[in-house]
Amino acid sequence: MSGTTVPRRRGRPRREETADTRDHILTAAREEFSERGYDRASVRGIAKAAGVDPALVHHYFGTKEQVFAAAIEVAFAPALDAPEALADAPLDAVGERLARFIFGVWENPATRTPLLAIVRSALNNDTAAAVFRRLVASQLLRRIAGRFDRPDAELRAELAAAQLVGCAILRYVIKVEPLASADVEQIIARVAPVVQGHLTGP
Amino acid sequence: MSGTTVPRRRGRPRREETADTRDHILTAAREEFSERGYDRASVRGIAKAAGVDPALVHHYFGTKEQVFAAAIEVAFAPALDAPEALADAPLDAVGERLARFIFGVWENPATRTPLLAIVRSALNNDTAAAVFRRLVASQLLRRIAGRFDRPDAELRAELAAAQLVGCAILRYVIKVEPLASADVEQIIARVAPVVQGHLTGP
Repeated sequence: MSGTTVPRRRGRPRREETADTRDHILTAAREEFSERGYDRASVRGIAKAAGVDPALVHHYFGTKEQVFAAAIEVAFAPALDAPEALADAPLDAVGERLARFIFGVWENPATRTPLLAIVRSALNNDTAAAVFRRLVASQLLRRIAGRFDRPDAELRAELAAAQLVGCAILRYVIKVEPLASADVEQIIARVAPVVQGHLTGP
Repeated sequence: MSGTTVPRRRGRPRREETADTRDHILTAAREEFSERGYDRASVRGIAKAAGVDPALVHHYFGTKEQVFAAAIEVAFAPALDAPEALADAPLDAVGERLARFIFGVWENPATRTPLLAIVRSALNNDTAAAVFRRLVASQLLRRIAGRFDRPDAELRAELAAAQLVGCAILRYVIKVEPLASADVEQIIARVAPVVQGHLTGP
């Protein structure tokens, strides 16, 4: 506060401390949003769970909505690599490549658990849905659509995503049988042509 | 309580009173589950919102889980007519018939609002998801699958449902553009062949 005589610990944190604290806050935020839902989650509660002052949460992230956006981005990060996974796929193999990539993220418990938590929060509140929408549109759907030089590429990417999102909801959230227990390769075999058709069909 | 001297009002309610009270409790239940989520909703809260004694809620429906099952069944009732809508469709038209029926339910605000509320609750809690799963499996998916004489008919019905569920989530909940504002006929035209392919394809 008072300038040059303040010891280092109370000044600007070292880079690795900043990163650790940020991660720590984001993990606490993900759990808070997941357990309490977007409406009832608070910056105060997130700070308490992370063992930091609420002012620090505001300092790093801003408002509750901004903390949510940051937490979503971390939880969703594995799925955000999908456009890269498509980049070098032959045009007639993008359907299978995308289906395989997305099911890979969902089948792995380490990536599924945070993804599921944040998707649940996003489905349950309009502000959270808007944050999720901006991320998914700008980081995922538009980049996938960019792979295809067509005027309706975004709608195509969204209909392809809809098939995959619906499978994820029915298999991993609602857990309806036989879909929930079916071999993932069997599902990919049936879903990949649909994704391909939406993306590159007539 | 004390037998024959109790006036009629305090005895077994007349049939129309029973139906009104049940409906009233179910409406209150739907709002309670929607606003508070399955976890935080309570039979006491539902009774309070309906202006009745909690014992009456238990009397008509049983546990919180059973109230939820009844509320889901009412909210989901319009969608449960889908198997009938398919019954008289030519085999090569079931995809369009099913897509048109399901989008019809979602496009109508009177059927969308309760459906959305209950679907959100069902996605947010494992007990609620299990109740929803039993309803959807027994009343919808298995009956649709029954229209097709194939060993994998249920998996096919679920993959078809996944395309429609995913569209509903992205269009009506996440509201991602251009899908959210696209003409519903344009969406049906692109989705119907996918639904048809899952149900009757090779």
